[in-house]
Amino acid sequence: MKRRWETNRTEAFSDGVFAIAITLLVLEIHVPAGDFANLWHGILHQWPSYLAYVTSFTAIGGVWLAHHGVFHRLRAVDNQVMRINLLLLMMVSFLPFPTKLVAEAIRDEDSARVAVIFYGIALFVVGALVAALWGAVLRDRELLKPEVTDEEVRQVTLALAPHLGFYVGATVFAIFVPRGAAFFYLAIAVLGVVRARADESNSVSP
Amino acid sequence: MKRRWETNRTEAFSDGVFAIAITLLVLEIHVPAGDFANLWHGILHQWPSYLAYVTSFTAIGGVWLAHHGVFHRLRAVDNQVMRINLLLLMMVSFLPFPTKLVAEAIRDEDSARVAVIFYGIALFVVGALVAALWGAVLRDRELLKPEVTDEEVRQVTLALAPHLGFYVGATVFAIFVPRGAAFFYLAIAVLGVVRARADESNSVSP
Amino acid sequence: MKRRWETNRTEAFSDGVFAIAITLLVLEIHVPAGDFANLWHGILHQWPSYLAYVTSFTAIGGVWLAHHGVFHRLRAVDNQVMRINLLLLMMVSFLPFPTKLVAEAIRDEDSARVAVIFYGIALFVVGALVAALWGAVLRDRELLKPEVTDEEVRQVTLALAPHLGFYVGATVFAIFVPRGAAFFYLAIAVLGVVRARADESNSVSP
Amino acid sequence: MKRRWETNRTEAFSDGVFAIAITLLVLEIHVPAGDFANLWHGILHQWPSYLAYVTSFTAIGGVWLAHHGVFHRLRAVDNQVMRINLLLLMMVSFLPFPTKLVAEAIRDEDSARVAVIFYGIALFVVGALVAALWGAVLRDRELLKPEVTDEEVRQVTLALAPHLGFYVGATVFAIFVPRGAAFFYLAIAVLGVVRARADESNSVSP
Repeated sequence: MKRRWETNRTEAFSDGVFAIAITLLVLEIHVPAGDFANLWHGILHQWPSYLAYVTSFTAIGGVWLAHHGVFHRLRAVDNQVMRINLLLLMMVSFLPFPTKLVAEAIRDEDSARVAVIFYGIALFVVGALVAALWGAVLRDRELLKPEVTDEEVRQVTLALAPHLGFYVGATVFAIFVPRGAAFFYLAIAVLGVVRARADESNSVSP
Repeated sequence: MKRRWETNRTEAFSDGVFAIAITLLVLEIHVPAGDFANLWHGILHQWPSYLAYVTSFTAIGGVWLAHHGVFHRLRAVDNQVMRINLLLLMMVSFLPFPTKLVAEAIRDEDSARVAVIFYGIALFVVGALVAALWGAVLRDRELLKPEVTDEEVRQVTLALAPHLGFYVGATVFAIFVPRGAAFFYLAIAVLGVVRARADESNSVSP
Repeated sequence: MKRRWETNRTEAFSDGVFAIAITLLVLEIHVPAGDFANLWHGILHQWPSYLAYVTSFTAIGGVWLAHHGVFHRLRAVDNQVMRINLLLLMMVSFLPFPTKLVAEAIRDEDSARVAVIFYGIALFVVGALVAALWGAVLRDRELLKPEVTDEEVRQVTLALAPHLGFYVGATVFAIFVPRGAAFFYLAIAVLGVVRARADESNSVSP
Repeated sequence: MKRRWETNRTEAFSDGVFAIAITLLVLEIHVPAGDFANLWHGILHQWPSYLAYVTSFTAIGGVWLAHHGVFHRLRAVDNQVMRINLLLLMMVSFLPFPTKLVAEAIRDEDSARVAVIFYGIALFVVGALVAALWGAVLRDRELLKPEVTDEEVRQVTLALAPHLGFYVGATVFAIFVPRGAAFFYLAIAVLGVVRARADESNSVSP
């Protein structure tokens, strides 16, 4: 007899954390008082903040979609999944910090390299925890709803794996071309949202 | 066979983002330490912060009502709607930044003009994304609940369109009369909440 | 045929705003760097922040209980109630600002008077909006669930009215004894939570 | 005839507060501008912030699991339980403050001692309020769902009691070895998440 948790309160709590982490990102954007004399210039000069905001927002949005894709196939959560989910939320909540670092450090070549690599590692860890969450589900198939097919399971697995590879690539790229890598992360994050489509096939009858 | 998402977790996540964005606005209001000697004066002197707070709160509240009006007519969400919804949440979460800019910049004529135009553009983009969300729903009528009538669809469409026009008008007006436009935005936001009434006609049986 | 909103998403959104406003209060508590040499002293010296935190937390908690008491008796929300609810959320979200003012201003007699009166007015407005919300419900009895008795309605009305009176009393008292009034507000807030008991009589069958 | 509250809105509100308190912790992490010249060093130098972040996140996560374990066994909430729950949320929302103190004070031996003891007391109070919540439930067994067995009740009670003892031990330990105690808290918090497993036995049929 296994020990199980219901999914609904876990989803509600996770949604709360995702929603707050994604919304706190804006607090890091501000125009320095000295730039108010020429405010258009000051606003445009903040482009690294907007880039970091959009990238992290999109990345967290993609993680939320993946999380949604995993959880709506579950009928229960075991201890292992619950703990990995808490770890995932801890890393997602942490993202506003490397986001802020990238926005602040990007103007200087050396500090940009460090900040962008650090950011890439954080995004990789988030992706790895999503994959670990799915892996823990697969170790105990009874957690899945009975109507979930093997084909669906295979599709979710395929969707999560290469995404991790992209982050490794982008982080290595960041060693050589830090600012370019910042845009690379954005592309990966956008891809994460776009690829989310394949996860849902057939799961809600039309 | 189309791919669909359930609406309930999307609503919960969206509500979280709306609620947080609307509540973070207060963090930008503060009385400078120098104004504590004559605190009534210091409190009153912050009127631009209150104006910006009330305007953005009302604007987000109106968007939430419109979002509510759209989503409670849906029985499922497709990939297109999901992505536009994420874009909408991204812009709504961004609003505390132009709100803060307006509150800080309004005392100086030149910076006020820039801040108020920037704020108007942000509000316009939010409105445009709400309209785009509705447009994406209309491209696939199967997303709507079967009981939604053509008349209801027409009413929602009519309610969203002119609102966009108001924001264009106010933003153009801001070029010439920046501070006046700030009050214009408030009026549009209040109108957005008041006009929300028509959206709901007959949809809950009395 | 009247226009109605469902209550569930309104409750979810309101709960989000209440939860965030109540949790943001802690962001205003901090020990100045200069007090780290003697940290116990520094921690104790922040008592006005703790007092303000506990008072506002309790006051918002009491409003949440009252809001809960009103909404679980509703089967639908009309436009009037929806708008008053948005106004109420706007004032509740605003409370962190006067809370911060009280915490900062209380050490100086003059600024304390202003801050405490301003805080009292804010609490009064919140209380008045809760009463207005209930008043709007009573203007259209069809909003109430059929099983709500006249006796229950009378009890809720009785519970809301005197509470407003307390805030008027405390605010007047604040003109003469500002710091004493700060503790008076705390007492009223605690009373708000304790009195919430009577609101719920018999409404859930045991 | 007793007075009761439903559990669902209380859970939703509590989840909101837990999710926000846990996510606000990241706002305290930042790299000083002076450390941007050597950013890897600056990032690593912030280890007390990460330690405090992980500890508080894990502690709040464990409290959420315990709260979840209590509430999903309830069919209703009485006034006593509701008030203790509000007190618990007040203390959980307060945790970002001692967390920040520990992160800032840990480099200096004397201030570290004060901060770590203060933090330990806060964690102890949170634990005591969780135990008090459960105690209040046990005083009125009708609050429990009928299918909850005496064996389950005994297990929850056993799980909560020693945890309090750990915090007392760690806080006393902090008097002598402040920095060591900081890691002790982390261990207790991790244990809190791991021990959560026993709470759920058999409660969801497999």
